[in-house]
Amino acid sequence: MNYMFANRMASAHKSFIREILKVTADPRVISFAGGLPNPQLFPVKDLAEATAKVLAEDGDDALQYSTTEGYLPLRQYIAERYSKKRGLQIEPDEILITNGSQQGLDLIGKVFLNAGDRIVIERPGYLGAIQAFSIYEPVFEAVPLLADGIDTALLDRALDENETKLFHAVVNFQNPSGITYSAQKRLELAEIFKGRSTILVEDDPYGELRFAGEDLPSMKSYLPDNVIALGSFSKIVAPGLRLGWICATMDVTEKLIVAKQASDLHSNYLSQRTVFQYLADHDIDEHILKIREAYKNQRDLMISSIEKYFPEEVEFTRPEGGMFLWVTLPEGISALRLFDLAGGEDVAFVPGSAFYVDEGGGNTLRLNFSNADGDEIEEGIKRLAEVIKELLAGTK
Amino acid sequence: MNYMFANRMASAHKSFIREILKVTADPRVISFAGGLPNPQLFPVKDLAEATAKVLAEDGDDALQYSTTEGYLPLRQYIAERYSKKRGLQIEPDEILITNGSQQGLDLIGKVFLNAGDRIVIERPGYLGAIQAFSIYEPVFEAVPLLADGIDTALLDRALDENETKLFHAVVNFQNPSGITYSAQKRLELAEIFKGRSTILVEDDPYGELRFAGEDLPSMKSYLPDNVIALGSFSKIVAPGLRLGWICATMDVTEKLIVAKQASDLHSNYLSQRTVFQYLADHDIDEHILKIREAYKNQRDLMISSIEKYFPEEVEFTRPEGGMFLWVTLPEGISALRLFDLAGGEDVAFVPGSAFYVDEGGGNTLRLNFSNADGDEIEEGIKRLAEVIKELLAGTK
Repeated sequence: MNYMFANRMASAHKSFIREILKVTADPRVISFAGGLPNPQLFPVKDLAEATAKVLAEDGDDALQYSTTEGYLPLRQYIAERYSKKRGLQIEPDEILITNGSQQGLDLIGKVFLNAGDRIVIERPGYLGAIQAFSIYEPVFEAVPLLADGIDTALLDRALDENETKLFHAVVNFQNPSGITYSAQKRLELAEIFKGRSTILVEDDPYGELRFAGEDLPSMKSYLPDNVIALGSFSKIVAPGLRLGWICATMDVTEKLIVAKQASDLHSNYLSQRTVFQYLADHDIDEHILKIREAYKNQRDLMISSIEKYFPEEVEFTRPEGGMFLWVTLPEGISALRLFDLAGGEDVAFVPGSAFYVDEGGGNTLRLNFSNADGDEIEEGIKRLAEVIKELLAGTK
Repeated sequence: MNYMFANRMASAHKSFIREILKVTADPRVISFAGGLPNPQLFPVKDLAEATAKVLAEDGDDALQYSTTEGYLPLRQYIAERYSKKRGLQIEPDEILITNGSQQGLDLIGKVFLNAGDRIVIERPGYLGAIQAFSIYEPVFEAVPLLADGIDTALLDRALDENETKLFHAVVNFQNPSGITYSAQKRLELAEIFKGRSTILVEDDPYGELRFAGEDLPSMKSYLPDNVIALGSFSKIVAPGLRLGWICATMDVTEKLIVAKQASDLHSNYLSQRTVFQYLADHDIDEHILKIREAYKNQRDLMISSIEKYFPEEVEFTRPEGGMFLWVTLPEGISALRLFDLAGGEDVAFVPGSAFYVDEGGGNTLRLNFSNADGDEIEEGIKRLAEVIKELLAGTK
């Protein structure tokens, strides 16, 4: 049968990354490809206890249909944490619980984007955002990331030249680059947005995972009305539960609730209750410290291995948090070719071109350091280095 | 700030039903309004055991990111059940796990609907489908339901007159009407669809809840390529877990996976694992028998109460399964007015006009019998009857 699919599906494809992940399920492969947190740090026992408690004490309610907004005590917890950690005054009614940040992106697309609307993303940009927004057929413009955040001069010009609905930014330990916006850059960004009706989507799944340097202000502290902030329990509790949130003004939240209701009524209620119980019974900051420490060690080992094995011409970022670093090969060396050759050596990563909506990034790659143990990191970097050297020498 | 929302949000509103549900949270109110299953029948203890087992044996995996398609053993289970219960040959790769049927509807909208595309729904129609599809700005045409299913003559004419992307049907114990398509009607429907490229969305959350009469064939047995079937664990296990599925041909599933990936990556993986564990360790058919028995008793009591208290001029359906029956008041008696007056007597229901995309249904209402206990059912119907009599007598 000849199916009459919607136009929006013509340009929608499966994520290249998620296809790579299937290949890297082979246990022999040392994978720096995924964006997976380290499962050894999941609070498995504590979540088991929390689930048992919720089901024993209030199972009939926890398994029933619930409100679209999400479990109120969980929204209160999130609002209070914004106050405690970021100095933001957020009402629980400005929080909508979502199925991870990814659904937050989809709902923002649903609520804001008409076909042909313009959105600005970072270059390189977060692939999940590109996928989510693509469904709504916008025009993407990619503005380059510099070492300390978005190129504000180019962003200002882009916003001047065309009416722009959204700018999507990962200001802390960006995926894929590991770059963090400096304090100065955040001020410049705030200046640029003042008086504009463009929405700044502050996508912040990694903000709690800072293991070096100092926390910097959320963009929402400068631009309370323009900023829609996205948060997630995926990196600080566990991703399989698919729980995140959107923090937006009441006017926007109202629309997002309508869109969420149409999309799936509400997020898994037992998991909302369970995560709240876990947060109520445990010190999440202590748990986050453990994650930070582990990821710092993994990053340190990856950087020291790169310094030891990679040729000097190869550049890389030194992220202060998160899960990724970004490698730039000398001009003309193809990361896709490197990917193919590295596959033969059982090492995987994501070629950087996946993160560009235009042609570009051909000589870049993303390395994940959160989901590989110490021995693997050194061995994997060593094998990658060998292939890079052969490519540079022109022997492969 | 003046937000630039997408055009699609102009006609999107919060569900009237979900707003009613908030009001009926008052424990004094006898509510026939919700579409809630009876929580006393949730397998709370068994689900607690299943969760504990999954987390103890494989917690690191169950809490990690997973595939968009869903947990393979769960998809295999669903495919096998289609074979065992419906005589359908379905491959696990033709099953996509969703966040309840509601997300199934949203993904179908995403994959098939361009703005302005025509879809046919039942009259009265399922509100969740109207909400989900509305986001994609289609043109709705409502074709009347007769006592034994859709008016096939009018449906045939509607499909002849305009190219139609989708027809949404709840063939078993429809929400809101409780109507089931007869065997003859299913054959006529199959004839109508042969040679057409219109998709028949067979939305079947209640199919397992038959407590009278005989199971009838799925439309997929006649039209394997045209039919996209939706299923749900909400009514046979528990709705708070938000787990359902789409069953479609590989060509369609491929597109649905792309849309699901962009929407939220995958459904709650711990809950997928838990529900599979529960299904593996328990006899779900035995559990479903208990639900059927309970709902049959609740329906019987509602019907006998209606026969005892309602004026003779009031008509109502006698569903052979599911959770709802449908009441038609004499012409000119407003169900909205009845709703207001009944509120004063602490009784709630859903006025039928909520299920019409055109004007219509002003003298109809939906009664839910699954989520009220025996005494409440008789007392609630008695109070409703009093108000109806006053409306008929013109004293209110």
